[in-house]
Amino acid sequence: MTAARPFRSDPPVADLAALFAQVRAFSMALVEGLSDADATVQSMDDASPAKWHLAHTSWFFETFVLRDLPGYRPFDPAFAYLFNSYYEAEGPRHPRPQRGLLTRPSLADICAYRAHVDAAMAGAMAMLTPDQAALIELGLAHEQQHQELLLTDLLHLFAQNPLHPAFRPQRREPAPPPPPMGWRDGAEGVVEIGHAGPGFAFDNEGPRHRVLLAPHRLADRPVTAGEWAAFIADRGYQTPRWWLADGWAFIQRERIEAPLYWQRDGEGGWLSFGLDGLHPVDPAAPVTHISLFEADAFAAWAGARLPTEFEWEAAAADHDPASGNFLDAPVAVRPLPGDHGLFGGVWEWTGSAYRPYPGFRPAAGAVGEYNGKFMSGQFVLRGGSCATPRGHARASYRNFFYPHQRWQFNGLRLASDPCS
Amino acid sequence: MTAARPFRSDPPVADLAALFAQVRAFSMALVEGLSDADATVQSMDDASPAKWHLAHTSWFFETFVLRDLPGYRPFDPAFAYLFNSYYEAEGPRHPRPQRGLLTRPSLADICAYRAHVDAAMAGAMAMLTPDQAALIELGLAHEQQHQELLLTDLLHLFAQNPLHPAFRPQRREPAPPPPPMGWRDGAEGVVEIGHAGPGFAFDNEGPRHRVLLAPHRLADRPVTAGEWAAFIADRGYQTPRWWLADGWAFIQRERIEAPLYWQRDGEGGWLSFGLDGLHPVDPAAPVTHISLFEADAFAAWAGARLPTEFEWEAAAADHDPASGNFLDAPVAVRPLPGDHGLFGGVWEWTGSAYRPYPGFRPAAGAVGEYNGKFMSGQFVLRGGSCATPRGHARASYRNFFYPHQRWQFNGLRLASDPCS
Amino acid sequence: MTAARPFRSDPPVADLAALFAQVRAFSMALVEGLSDADATVQSMDDASPAKWHLAHTSWFFETFVLRDLPGYRPFDPAFAYLFNSYYEAEGPRHPRPQRGLLTRPSLADICAYRAHVDAAMAGAMAMLTPDQAALIELGLAHEQQHQELLLTDLLHLFAQNPLHPAFRPQRREPAPPPPPMGWRDGAEGVVEIGHAGPGFAFDNEGPRHRVLLAPHRLADRPVTAGEWAAFIADRGYQTPRWWLADGWAFIQRERIEAPLYWQRDGEGGWLSFGLDGLHPVDPAAPVTHISLFEADAFAAWAGARLPTEFEWEAAAADHDPASGNFLDAPVAVRPLPGDHGLFGGVWEWTGSAYRPYPGFRPAAGAVGEYNGKFMSGQFVLRGGSCATPRGHARASYRNFFYPHQRWQFNGLRLASDPCS
Amino acid sequence: MTAARPFRSDPPVADLAALFAQVRAFSMALVEGLSDADATVQSMDDASPAKWHLAHTSWFFETFVLRDLPGYRPFDPAFAYLFNSYYEAEGPRHPRPQRGLLTRPSLADICAYRAHVDAAMAGAMAMLTPDQAALIELGLAHEQQHQELLLTDLLHLFAQNPLHPAFRPQRREPAPPPPPMGWRDGAEGVVEIGHAGPGFAFDNEGPRHRVLLAPHRLADRPVTAGEWAAFIADRGYQTPRWWLADGWAFIQRERIEAPLYWQRDGEGGWLSFGLDGLHPVDPAAPVTHISLFEADAFAAWAGARLPTEFEWEAAAADHDPASGNFLDAPVAVRPLPGDHGLFGGVWEWTGSAYRPYPGFRPAAGAVGEYNGKFMSGQFVLRGGSCATPRGHARASYRNFFYPHQRWQFNGLRLASDPCS
Repeated sequence: MTAARPFRSDPPVADLAALFAQVRAFSMALVEGLSDADATVQSMDDASPAKWHLAHTSWFFETFVLRDLPGYRPFDPAFAYLFNSYYEAEGPRHPRPQRGLLTRPSLADICAYRAHVDAAMAGAMAMLTPDQAALIELGLAHEQQHQELLLTDLLHLFAQNPLHPAFRPQRREPAPPPPPMGWRDGAEGVVEIGHAGPGFAFDNEGPRHRVLLAPHRLADRPVTAGEWAAFIADRGYQTPRWWLADGWAFIQRERIEAPLYWQRDGEGGWLSFGLDGLHPVDPAAPVTHISLFEADAFAAWAGARLPTEFEWEAAAADHDPASGNFLDAPVAVRPLPGDHGLFGGVWEWTGSAYRPYPGFRPAAGAVGEYNGKFMSGQFVLRGGSCATPRGHARASYRNFFYPHQRWQFNGLRLASDPCS
Repeated sequence: MTAARPFRSDPPVADLAALFAQVRAFSMALVEGLSDADATVQSMDDASPAKWHLAHTSWFFETFVLRDLPGYRPFDPAFAYLFNSYYEAEGPRHPRPQRGLLTRPSLADICAYRAHVDAAMAGAMAMLTPDQAALIELGLAHEQQHQELLLTDLLHLFAQNPLHPAFRPQRREPAPPPPPMGWRDGAEGVVEIGHAGPGFAFDNEGPRHRVLLAPHRLADRPVTAGEWAAFIADRGYQTPRWWLADGWAFIQRERIEAPLYWQRDGEGGWLSFGLDGLHPVDPAAPVTHISLFEADAFAAWAGARLPTEFEWEAAAADHDPASGNFLDAPVAVRPLPGDHGLFGGVWEWTGSAYRPYPGFRPAAGAVGEYNGKFMSGQFVLRGGSCATPRGHARASYRNFFYPHQRWQFNGLRLASDPCS
Repeated sequence: MTAARPFRSDPPVADLAALFAQVRAFSMALVEGLSDADATVQSMDDASPAKWHLAHTSWFFETFVLRDLPGYRPFDPAFAYLFNSYYEAEGPRHPRPQRGLLTRPSLADICAYRAHVDAAMAGAMAMLTPDQAALIELGLAHEQQHQELLLTDLLHLFAQNPLHPAFRPQRREPAPPPPPMGWRDGAEGVVEIGHAGPGFAFDNEGPRHRVLLAPHRLADRPVTAGEWAAFIADRGYQTPRWWLADGWAFIQRERIEAPLYWQRDGEGGWLSFGLDGLHPVDPAAPVTHISLFEADAFAAWAGARLPTEFEWEAAAADHDPASGNFLDAPVAVRPLPGDHGLFGGVWEWTGSAYRPYPGFRPAAGAVGEYNGKFMSGQFVLRGGSCATPRGHARASYRNFFYPHQRWQFNGLRLASDPCS
Repeated sequence: MTAARPFRSDPPVADLAALFAQVRAFSMALVEGLSDADATVQSMDDASPAKWHLAHTSWFFETFVLRDLPGYRPFDPAFAYLFNSYYEAEGPRHPRPQRGLLTRPSLADICAYRAHVDAAMAGAMAMLTPDQAALIELGLAHEQQHQELLLTDLLHLFAQNPLHPAFRPQRREPAPPPPPMGWRDGAEGVVEIGHAGPGFAFDNEGPRHRVLLAPHRLADRPVTAGEWAAFIADRGYQTPRWWLADGWAFIQRERIEAPLYWQRDGEGGWLSFGLDGLHPVDPAAPVTHISLFEADAFAAWAGARLPTEFEWEAAAADHDPASGNFLDAPVAVRPLPGDHGLFGGVWEWTGSAYRPYPGFRPAAGAVGEYNGKFMSGQFVLRGGSCATPRGHARASYRNFFYPHQRWQFNGLRLASDPCS
């Protein structure tokens, strides 16, 4: 087993300053058109205000890079408290459920904060130690994660508004009918799992290690909204035998009968709310905004199961990127704004609990809290979604959420055992 | 007993159009300096966003006056749903705890809504029926109530912000030491209670009726913050014998040890947060932001009790307004902005549960929901506060809140029995 | 105003020892037929186990009388902690919601505890100081209150059991149809309210004082279950205009559509569960197991209102006990067991919040916590129920519960204003 | 992969009738000395009354075996509703949190129910189909699980009682000092996991399949209470870096500072409450009554980790049962009553989420709900405890609980990676 090299590209990124500028600018592009109020309100404890995402990602650079540079003057000393997310090692912090109460600083103040950090970072780029460069690379991957959260949190906020505001209005072209779901044999025997190669990866993608896979098959595309509608029509949400016990309790308690953001159109069909407003559900699009519980129940209903994260990664690592095969679709993300749309890829729930790989050790210091401490109670998702920044995801990437969470662009792909 | 004439002046207000313009303009003046975000966020279920107050008070005129006028076009049909507060007779409405999720319509949109309503109202002023005039008068009194709530809700919001933003910064002049608390004999025997005379009154201020008062005394001024600090120092919040059982459970559960917005200054003293920011507690100012439970416990500690609402009204109705005696202080409110300050009067908790007067009947129709349906579980406050619009309150005015609520400018005055 | 003499008969009770024996024996008679388990389980926070009632009433005598007698040896020192109810002055105590977790001491142990206390009390009877005699009298009135609670708590427990166990099975004779509801004029002008005369009274029944009553009428009997069924059939529980706002929220949240313990019989009628099991609702019986909120809504629906506690007392104090008029019915209680039945009187919700009378002062010491500290948030009930021990209630008696509470034998009587 | 044979021994158990009689009698022996009340009360939602365990295990045989036999008459038709635990396929059932409200049927009634079922089962033993025999074997394993739960639930109930009742009083001999913790190399490479061989196993122990293990070491004994006290003394419960984020939130919210049932002795040491009452913590005994969160934090503090369930099983399957090595201790259980004691083995938390093995399919029908539907959110424990019936556990046995649950006899064993 080679030593873990999390949070770092090898060789180093060629032009870190350019990457920095690009990622930071993309965050600003995302909030174009948001009002101060849009960027301030928090619609649930799981979500954060857009303004907070913009500030927290800047706090990351200020705290882990700039703070230690000679002569750096913090933009506002109070921000260390306000915009720490969960780093216990960095001291007390503003409680998460109260992020939406901060009407001050304003969105404009936060933009000024970003400019202050960006300027200081630009000045520092010429003389980075390798450790600092690695922290910056981590900070950019971190910011890309918050770019996706910013969009999903905003969608959740707008979905609470009876006026159904559209963040990025667009005319939806109906998707062509999807191909029938096909099956392909998955890898069998011992496979290598975990990040390898030159690019950046998070610590939780390693250490690379060997896993033994049993024979299995994988669907060649995600489950569609049309297929999901058939599950609903077959009383899938009313039939306990398809459900994990916790899932059944969850949908009873929350009175869930369809994916999040779906509503009946009054004529037997379904509407769904997205960043482009309220539209008829497109049966050809991948179903999304479902919990692991729903994904698992659907798979049981379909006589299949969810893939493990290892089955998924083995298939994704294997495929020829030029051939457009199954991994292609999920990560074929279109950048925002402009050509960003709601039809696109989805994160795919796997049947794997989010736990450390053999030999996993969190990094030393506060960044060691990045991933490892969340390794209980959550499930791994693989792939990438329409809201994932282009270039962010990879075959070894491990996304994770609690099994009841639904506000991400999460869908599923089926797997099955050979003789079932 | 004369017939009830709630919600109406008699004779009619001389220049209703001028009054309308003045009250409506004052609402707009109150939000000067608020950002879109400040006006949007809701800091607790009990509070509403400033934007919502501005919109709801306009909805009142649209719903109860304009809607029935020929040719009136609603500004936005969705607002009937969004900005109804609690009128069951007006149909379903946006849930109260979700008022703060409406980032759209924006503050600017709401201002346009107000202008639309104001213009239509101006056009209608010439040809009002007496019933319409009465509804307008009610709507203006209603708007004044929301002006006070707008300020208290905003204060609560800003108090959640670790940056301690000051809504109306001002230099605080230390108040002169208060006079020692004096006692005066209250009215004894049968007194007339309830609104009488020409001006406007709410339905809950009548019917005017006779009440028999036992001998008692009333303090000649409210309890001060300095006196309250002595109660704290004497372990008042740690001594169960002073407390109602529900009050004791409340302060245990919420870990309450001082008035809302008070915090220790680290040197044995107290700071309090107000609309002008964080300042040392002024010992000469009336204590405020206390619950009925705290007021009752303080009175017990002081060997006294709270006055009944009838004792209070009898004294207030009696006093010579020119002499500046006890009722004068509470209602000596300074209008906002400019000379509005936090040193000023407080609403005074009474020991009277908020219940109907003999013969009380709610008005017919939706406005009948205005007061009567809240007549359980709450206590009456009398007087008026620094945030009460000038001219709004009167001796017969009955304000009411639940005994645990603390975010209003609520204080207390002591009463006592003769031989106790 | 004469000095308060709460908690004490004047002249003293003739044979206190005999009264003591009779009341104590009645408690034991009540639990005849209960298993150890029946006497141990607590079905909700508001209720207490039968065993706890038996022990707590003995703790009262041990703590307030025996503890100070020379040579008294407590039965078990731990009981001071286990069986204190709410007396803060007596130190920490077992949390109320955990009373039902005490499977030990057993019911037999508690009976032994009672015998121990009774023996010590018998020995002490000969040499009581007047203060001790007064405390005993208070303790017996206290025990009678717990006798009623024991029955209502047991009913609540058995009502949770799908087997519908009958505590005291009996054949129900259908009640004769009730007389049509008649109205009689209430007292008008200044009346004396509060306990007077030789017998025992609680502190909250005084000081006796004068109250001014407006003209009104009172119904000559309580509302019946048949009349309540008409309210249900007229969609009373679905019509917000009849309800206090807190009441409407309460029945929505709890999905309440009928009195507690009522269930539909599947054929358009109603069954109710009582201490004698599950039976058809008797339309001629007084309705019971309703909240203040429901009583108030019914009165509004009927075009009437609830009486004030003063109107009630004035009428009750006035009536000729020999004539069997309206107060007679409610207190015509039949003792348990044997001739105790579920058809009988009900406590009557009044429209009066439970607040102190003018000049009220709690007694010194722990017994001062008996009544006064509960004087917020509750409403007064007057009368007495089928579960009230004979001789316990009187015209000045003030019972009190929170407006949402339903598990007592609480009903209502209508009142009205003259010209309404 | 051979076909799954869950829930069945092969060859069949030699004398099923004798096994049936033995297991059923052991349940009755367990409740010896319990009062009706002890057997009725439910101390938390996770626990069930002893009476319920006795009845539910009988319901299992009545429902899955006897109900289909000609001529069988149910003991009480209502029991099908009262004593179903979670089998959705068997229809509605009494809500779990209300199990403790059933004071009727009594413990004696339940014993009569058991006798009724036992008699019918005895009559049926001669003519069982293989499927019926398998269901009986499953029912007996099921009853053994409830025997352990009966004890842990009873311990939880008695722990709520300030009197500290001892269920099985005994004199505790101090355990000899434990050997220093040693390490042994775990199995490496591909191992076979899952049940094999002739005996009974649950469905979740299969299908047997191959797993690839990385090099690792395992401690040769569980962590002791003395070692745990050192973790506490080193401020382990106050140091966030050792904790999973969910674990940290959990101990903050619940104010947890030591294992469940531990309390300070006032002199710097610890007491713990067990089925034999309150005793000083024995430093040589395995620590128990800890959550997965605590186990994981302890391992991090110790520079180690929890073993996976596969590492555990490979080691357990390997060991020579005669040599008394590490698996021996945990399952060296002493039967109750008499020589059952609290010093003994513990279930060991593993780092493995409870998920299905490759190819797992729940059995058809209601018994298919036995294990599979709980495969989310829980962690696997291996081994067996002092409360596990002798002969119940085996190397492939998978016990499972939520990571916050603490009332079982759950402890931990450390594992480590080779170069860490």
